[in-house]
Parts: sequence; C-alpha cells; structure tokens
Amino acid sequence: MKAKVYVTLKPSVLDPQGKAIHHSVELMGWQGITDIRQGKYFEIALAETLDAERARALAERLAREVLSNPVIEDYRIEIEEP
Amino acid sequence: MKAKVYVTLKPSVLDPQGKAIHHSVELMGWQGITDIRQGKYFEIALAETLDAERARALAERLAREVLSNPVIEDYRIEIEEP
Repeated sequence: MKAKVYVTLKPSVLDPQGKAIHHSVELMGWQGITDIRQGKYFEIALAETLDAERARALAERLAREVLSNPVIEDYRIEIEEP
Repeated sequence: MKAKVYVTLKPSVLDPQGKAIHHSVELMGWQGITDIRQGKYFEIALAETLDAERARALAERLAREVLSNPVIEDYRIEIEEP
C-alpha cells in the first residue's frame, strides 16, 4: 500500500521559492505563466499488513505531525491501493 | 488553467531526505512505514488565453527545462482545466 502526501503553503502565505522561479522564467522570456507555487510531495510505502482505513489514519497522522507545519501549510493525502 | 507538476528522484537515485525522515519516525517509535521518498510539487497558473494543448506543451517544457534535473529526476504533469 502506498500513500501520497502533498504539502503546500496556505494560500495566504507568501511563497518566496515560487516567486523566485516565476521571476527567473520571466527574465528568460517565457510567456503565459501567471504564477508558480512550490510544495513538497511524499511517497510513503506502508506495511502490507495494514488495511486501507489504518493506512489512511497512519498517513494522516504522519502528514499532520511530521511532514507539514499546520501553522503555514496545508496537506492532501491520496491512498493508492495495491 | 492550472498545471500540476510532480518532480521525484529516479528510483535508482538515493533519497537522503526521505531516508532521514524515515529514520526519524522509526526512532520516534512509529510502525507500519516501510519507506519514505520526498519530491517537489508545483502548481503553475497559466494564462487563460492558452488552450489545453498549448498549456500542456508549456508546462511540459517548464518541467523539463526548469523544474527538474533530467539526469536524476522524473516528472509528471496534470492539467486542471477550468
């Protein structure tokens, strides 16, 4: 079983990395890009002994307590069943 | 129109960040997690004037030339139509 976790800055939080990339591509003459925001993406392999419900609960807890900072970040989880 | 780009290390490439997180959660006593790999996730806002085909081509080029290092990374693109 695999869980995918997407961690992004909350919309109200300034994203300096995204801004820097956006500014650079504009300087390079790229057109058609109005904004870029960068986040983190995790692929978590979970033990086969876990059922889908316990796998989601574990991924949820990991995302909330370890992989994201709830003050400035949001997270989204997808469970990929075998 | 929005493009989502997922950049991950190629499977053959060691992921020190993922290993470090995995090692830490094991030390904290977490069970049921067999591996963690970390990647980058980008949300790109594209000009409304672009049609889906040109939007995908632009996102593809950005992912290949700017957002990823083709030597050690793979990328995947999703186009979110309005």
